[in-house]
Amino acid sequence: MISVKGYAAQDPQTDLAPWNFERREVGPHDVQFEILFCGVCHSDLHQIKNDWFPGIFPMVPGHEIVGRVTKVGDHVKNFKVGDLAGTGCMVDSCQVCENCKNDLEQYCLDGGSTQTYNSYERDGKTPTYGGYSNTIVVREEFVLHISDKLDLAATAPLLCAGITTYSPLRHWKVGKGHKLAVLGLGGLGHMAVKFGVAFGADVTVLSTSPKKEEDAKRLGAHHFVVTSDPEQIKAATGTFDFILDTVSAEHDFNMYLSLLRTDGTMICVGVPSEPAKVAAFSLLGGRKSLAGSGIGGIAETQEMLDFCAENNIVSDIEIIDIKDITKSYERMEKGDVRYRFVIDIATL
Amino acid sequence: MISVKGYAAQDPQTDLAPWNFERREVGPHDVQFEILFCGVCHSDLHQIKNDWFPGIFPMVPGHEIVGRVTKVGDHVKNFKVGDLAGTGCMVDSCQVCENCKNDLEQYCLDGGSTQTYNSYERDGKTPTYGGYSNTIVVREEFVLHISDKLDLAATAPLLCAGITTYSPLRHWKVGKGHKLAVLGLGGLGHMAVKFGVAFGADVTVLSTSPKKEEDAKRLGAHHFVVTSDPEQIKAATGTFDFILDTVSAEHDFNMYLSLLRTDGTMICVGVPSEPAKVAAFSLLGGRKSLAGSGIGGIAETQEMLDFCAENNIVSDIEIIDIKDITKSYERMEKGDVRYRFVIDIATL
Repeated sequence: MISVKGYAAQDPQTDLAPWNFERREVGPHDVQFEILFCGVCHSDLHQIKNDWFPGIFPMVPGHEIVGRVTKVGDHVKNFKVGDLAGTGCMVDSCQVCENCKNDLEQYCLDGGSTQTYNSYERDGKTPTYGGYSNTIVVREEFVLHISDKLDLAATAPLLCAGITTYSPLRHWKVGKGHKLAVLGLGGLGHMAVKFGVAFGADVTVLSTSPKKEEDAKRLGAHHFVVTSDPEQIKAATGTFDFILDTVSAEHDFNMYLSLLRTDGTMICVGVPSEPAKVAAFSLLGGRKSLAGSGIGGIAETQEMLDFCAENNIVSDIEIIDIKDITKSYERMEKGDVRYRFVIDIATL
Repeated sequence: MISVKGYAAQDPQTDLAPWNFERREVGPHDVQFEILFCGVCHSDLHQIKNDWFPGIFPMVPGHEIVGRVTKVGDHVKNFKVGDLAGTGCMVDSCQVCENCKNDLEQYCLDGGSTQTYNSYERDGKTPTYGGYSNTIVVREEFVLHISDKLDLAATAPLLCAGITTYSPLRHWKVGKGHKLAVLGLGGLGHMAVKFGVAFGADVTVLSTSPKKEEDAKRLGAHHFVVTSDPEQIKAATGTFDFILDTVSAEHDFNMYLSLLRTDGTMICVGVPSEPAKVAAFSLLGGRKSLAGSGIGGIAETQEMLDFCAENNIVSDIEIIDIKDITKSYERMEKGDVRYRFVIDIATL
């Protein structure tokens, strides 16, 4: 077994703190890499607090992981020692079901994909531990190539915030001629703006916070709507082809559905703790859809990383010391981050 | 003005009773027809009881209307005295907005289409009165041709129950190779089964009531799932490409969403009084959509009627005397109708 240094929550009531644990030895199909940076996702906080479901403790969060390969198994073909590498939200899946065969491992039909943390390996009993740690061992198929053209720390959030917004925009073919609204300008939202603009859509940021307008425009958004202003909402009613909803706090789905045009689609990628309350007329009155999308498959994640390298797209980040993680969570909860904290794992 | 005999609710607390009222004289673009049959839609009851929103009283319900033309305006081209004719849920719209131009009058962007009853004419002040009456005057563009090949009484429900289920199945291109579940086997549901089968889909009826299985199969359904049986629900999980949800009573949307395959769509055409509670994971876990659809445009309604004439599709009905309307509502609320009451207007 490999000794690993990390940060873990011992239970939902306790702050993250240093914790040593072990990972498996590198198997023939595994890649081990030294973790250099790990993004801080809002879902890290949701999970250590049991907001969605009872977690597996001790929990080492982190699923926006980049680093450099230190060891590869005998049968590994696509990585060699010294390569940059990354891992996102999943580290395994059954690999044989219809969805896995169709590059949709995130929707693996055999009990779901194995999450990078707060999950069990395919054996159903070995817990997985995430990227708030100094090294990780992942089977080759779930390791991504990271371009050396991009700032490495700013690349980490692409592994979750990036693919989570890239994938639905690609799936619903959002681009030229479409009016896209991005609801919420946080870690996911700011990536959605960058991708929406890169794909040629007319992008509006919907936000409760007027002070984000300048940033939204700097990120490339063409328009900005303050959602607490009834006049601005009235003017935006019935105008969007798509709304990408990145908000994981409670919000009024019917109000946002009213902003869609006929046949419009609101795509949820955020996960509020409470169910959305959706009035039938909000959907019937214009043949609208409320959809959901979860991260993206491995092939699409690589496609997204390559697209980012070609188009010089990374996340806007603030690098933090891992000792400041709890303080960073507090700031994240207040929306006080532009737009992703990334842990410098050298501080571990 | 034209004197009309009808049945009206004077307020939400009062049963329907005979009421005489007036309709406009036949204008140059109007068609007047003697109403022979009018279907009884669950929404008639919702509306006279103010279940959805405060209604306009006195209210003459009825939007599944068929009869024979008695008078046409000077500029009417497509109808002549003696023709069979029908009118569904709407009698007017702005005719000039993008949706009206695209044969989606039901989603008219200028304040919505004018509903056949419980609505105002385009002047914003003249109430509309529905088909529980002996004659109606409708502008030509909103009058449908009815084939004499079909049983006339059984054709009436096509004007709402028919188009409401036909339109979404066509829009989402449901057909060969698709597994379609129809949720609820009532007025809408039994038409959805007939259309789903006619379009080549593999059709399953989802119902709380095991005693409907025989009927479902008789109507052409290939499978039947009793939704109160956990074993049957477990077996059906993740299997449907589409669910057409015709239920207007409260129900568990998350449970039904779990029955969809990856990328599946649940289409709501029923209107429960309370909002649906939709958990984010129900949509994210498989990139699913919850959509809504409202009736269909006029051109599509004519297409549906022509399709029914070619394929000998009508509604399964029970003809009633208008004096039994309140008793029929009580039976309808208990699901005790196979599958649509139709009023013989000769009994008025």
